[in-house]
Amino acid sequence: MDRIRRFWGWGFEDAGLSHAEERALAKRIQPFIDIAPHPIIPPTPDELHLPAPRITPPDSLDPWCQSDDVARAGHTYGKSFRDVVRALERRWERPPDVVASPVDEDGVIAVLDWASRIDAVVIPYGGGSSVVGGVEAPANDDRPVISCDLGRLDRVLEVDSVSRAALIQAGVYGPSLEAQLRPHGLTLRHYPQSFEVSSLGGWIATRAGGHYATLHTHIDDFVESVRAVTPAGLWESRRLPGSGAGPSPDRLLLGSEGILGVITEAWMRLQDRPRFRASGVARFATFAEGARSARALAQSGLWPSNCRLLDAGEAMMTGAGSGEAHLLLIGFESADHPVDLAMARAAELARDHGGIVEIRRDGDGGQEHLDASDQWRSSFLRAPYIRDSLVCLGLISETFETAITWDRFDSFVDDIRACAENALRAVGAWPALVSCRLTHVYPDGAAPYFTILAPGQSSGRLAQWQEVKAEVMGAIVAGGGTVTHHHAVGRDHRPGYDLERPSLFAAQLRAAKRVVDPGAMLNPGVLIDP
Amino acid sequence: MDRIRRFWGWGFEDAGLSHAEERALAKRIQPFIDIAPHPIIPPTPDELHLPAPRITPPDSLDPWCQSDDVARAGHTYGKSFRDVVRALERRWERPPDVVASPVDEDGVIAVLDWASRIDAVVIPYGGGSSVVGGVEAPANDDRPVISCDLGRLDRVLEVDSVSRAALIQAGVYGPSLEAQLRPHGLTLRHYPQSFEVSSLGGWIATRAGGHYATLHTHIDDFVESVRAVTPAGLWESRRLPGSGAGPSPDRLLLGSEGILGVITEAWMRLQDRPRFRASGVARFATFAEGARSARALAQSGLWPSNCRLLDAGEAMMTGAGSGEAHLLLIGFESADHPVDLAMARAAELARDHGGIVEIRRDGDGGQEHLDASDQWRSSFLRAPYIRDSLVCLGLISETFETAITWDRFDSFVDDIRACAENALRAVGAWPALVSCRLTHVYPDGAAPYFTILAPGQSSGRLAQWQEVKAEVMGAIVAGGGTVTHHHAVGRDHRPGYDLERPSLFAAQLRAAKRVVDPGAMLNPGVLIDP
Repeated sequence: MDRIRRFWGWGFEDAGLSHAEERALAKRIQPFIDIAPHPIIPPTPDELHLPAPRITPPDSLDPWCQSDDVARAGHTYGKSFRDVVRALERRWERPPDVVASPVDEDGVIAVLDWASRIDAVVIPYGGGSSVVGGVEAPANDDRPVISCDLGRLDRVLEVDSVSRAALIQAGVYGPSLEAQLRPHGLTLRHYPQSFEVSSLGGWIATRAGGHYATLHTHIDDFVESVRAVTPAGLWESRRLPGSGAGPSPDRLLLGSEGILGVITEAWMRLQDRPRFRASGVARFATFAEGARSARALAQSGLWPSNCRLLDAGEAMMTGAGSGEAHLLLIGFESADHPVDLAMARAAELARDHGGIVEIRRDGDGGQEHLDASDQWRSSFLRAPYIRDSLVCLGLISETFETAITWDRFDSFVDDIRACAENALRAVGAWPALVSCRLTHVYPDGAAPYFTILAPGQSSGRLAQWQEVKAEVMGAIVAGGGTVTHHHAVGRDHRPGYDLERPSLFAAQLRAAKRVVDPGAMLNPGVLIDP
Repeated sequence: MDRIRRFWGWGFEDAGLSHAEERALAKRIQPFIDIAPHPIIPPTPDELHLPAPRITPPDSLDPWCQSDDVARAGHTYGKSFRDVVRALERRWERPPDVVASPVDEDGVIAVLDWASRIDAVVIPYGGGSSVVGGVEAPANDDRPVISCDLGRLDRVLEVDSVSRAALIQAGVYGPSLEAQLRPHGLTLRHYPQSFEVSSLGGWIATRAGGHYATLHTHIDDFVESVRAVTPAGLWESRRLPGSGAGPSPDRLLLGSEGILGVITEAWMRLQDRPRFRASGVARFATFAEGARSARALAQSGLWPSNCRLLDAGEAMMTGAGSGEAHLLLIGFESADHPVDLAMARAAELARDHGGIVEIRRDGDGGQEHLDASDQWRSSFLRAPYIRDSLVCLGLISETFETAITWDRFDSFVDDIRACAENALRAVGAWPALVSCRLTHVYPDGAAPYFTILAPGQSSGRLAQWQEVKAEVMGAIVAGGGTVTHHHAVGRDHRPGYDLERPSLFAAQLRAAKRVVDPGAMLNPGVLIDP
């Protein structure tokens, strides 16, 4: 039986924190941050009273369309802090009139045809895990809204073991995708934090960041070809291992966030399942030393699969450390050859930069397995559920992520941290915790990821958040960073994105959109104003 | 003093084959292929009688504009087989009216302004090494033509050693670029066959393939940001190590072949100079076995810098082998750590697939240094000069390159080889040599590169070539390959490219071009008809 999705927050009904866990969490937070005296109780389905849908699907689409309140509420927002707060406040702004869940590509075409006939907006919906306002209806647009949920296009259609690639439907979620590949001994190894509730098509549309901390940081490099449905017809690229024939067509769809077509299938490059592993943890007295070590590792050509630096606060909050040291988690994996020497060299590099290194040997048993790295990983996948509980406790819980070249790294991180702290103070959300980790590292820079935990005003939390968000986004873009390294732009990052991308490129993107979507039906207002 | 460029063929006047070398070459070819009784004598400047230029540069541009016959003839064509034949036939079709060589970006802007005022075509010109008709004037377009030669924008402007990146002007050629980086201990390590006579901007505009046989196969991945001048204004992306903010702007300019702007600068990712090296040669009884070994290596995650498979004929022609075995040249390099174990594992993989492996140890002296790998490399860089001599000897000398996934690899290579042989027979260019090598390999496929050497009819060689080219291009595209892995599309590959790219993507590219080049002034007819 299918697990039930939380319509108001992250993931599945059966996977949130227990009451005991929530109480323990509250106890852990309380010494640092004021929490609300009474946690907010999440809404139940019977509390939903959405305005009646403005459209009715034609008979041919009806079997796989839903117009009930739970389906519509569950597709009204993504899963950002703002989304969860609005849901907890029982505010369902601009819910889709219909949730269409086609079972095949023809169904997707039928949805676009219908939308075209009735002049409706279509929002492509994968797992709905957007944290940037990527799947909600536009304001200032009174057309009816159809949320096109790809979740039933969930099959691996063809596996090419020789080339290690597979043709995969776009709506498949991470766990099902991996389960279908496992009998072939293959894996995509793309594990974003949203792994359980996000889809292949969503990853491609948003240039999702994944498992590998170096080298193949985004889904981009694993895309061999893409197929998408647009109002102007089918868009399909050729399956190729590499090409130099003009600008890459795939790279236009990668990151298009639903505005250039509904991705229905992709040929994806896969990996053999790893057989050799080595990992270690390096402890640093300062974050800057840890970052220099991460830089040396990123520039070494060793290409570790894990190279994630947690500052002391982050290490403590996730249970990976005591809060006294900054931790660099290093990992190597291979399906072909032992990686112990690579790990040993990485440890040398870390020691060269002041790190105290513990290497974990594969096969060490018992307690050793629960090392900092494991602790961090399980906490990583659980974090969004914890976030929901924190929001219920009245907190502001938000993340900002970006990327910056190494020459500007140290001062940039200090500036963003200070900016966030000042903004939190200015809106009265203080004392607060601002922590930082590096999620991905490159030879020429890194992707810092900031987590904010702050007390919110019982009413007005969103206004506080909005001000902090705007301040930090402004500082990131002014400091030379990107408005998003792997969370996408959506509606929330538009102000920063509009400053960041070349203005002529935005005009080119608008022109490219007009070609495939002359009626501006697809996710209007995301990335660009059509 | 500057070396003098050959206006009719490849490279520099002082670097072609000596008469003795040409005679030796003829002797080596003659047993296999008929050569012309009297080699063609290349044209000299005094033979040039071009039609008068139709335009005169304004005074402000005059100091760096040329309208003499040698400059115009030298900028009329690229350096394809067809180009050299036309030059040897003293045919200068549609020479540019003016060759403008601005000394800075303002000069480039001035050229576009002038062209806009007089309704002229502008052809961005880097090193002029195009082998696909990428720098010649369009037919069926009677506007005056300005060749905009970026060669004086040849400086490294800024080096960021921390991030290992540099801001580099687009007109710089390979040797000067490397010379300017050397004092910083850094290198781009991008060595296309055209290295000596091609420019950074040209590499970016054509998605040039480079040094690395795996992982970083194209210039694409080394581009941190790009700056270009367009008729609609400046186009400049942000310097970032990675980003997920919308479709990558850089990826639209990468491969744009001069139709979307004149690239003037780029921030490029650099490498430390390698200190550790290991290499080896594996000999195989069949090409298919060699390919399976290359596949295993490409899928191993060892990421060799060299992994080039030469078929027996190719090995013989380039002097790397005796012609009895197919050779896989394997190489590893690192600035950080020894690579002997990686080489040892690669050798194991080669042996698993039937290879007989010789490993070269770093530091081995004397004769050992002149092994198959070195032999191949020096012959690789000299090949275009040899090609010119072969053309003078009356031969048809051409290459076709593509990429294909592994599942279709064996039959595809056989088909293309057979197609080329049949086409050569059909046009009476027989007996001929058709050889194949793999220039780059990927986990999911490879880039086969075919070389044709055939006897040409003293008049009508181009018609023969045209027919063979069309046949092979058709077979490549019909067989699922790409029309070009790293030679670009230009005008010559348009028929295949038009079938390969998604048709909606072509329409999007046209729309993107109209935004920055409403007058269709930039390289019209390349990639798309504006």
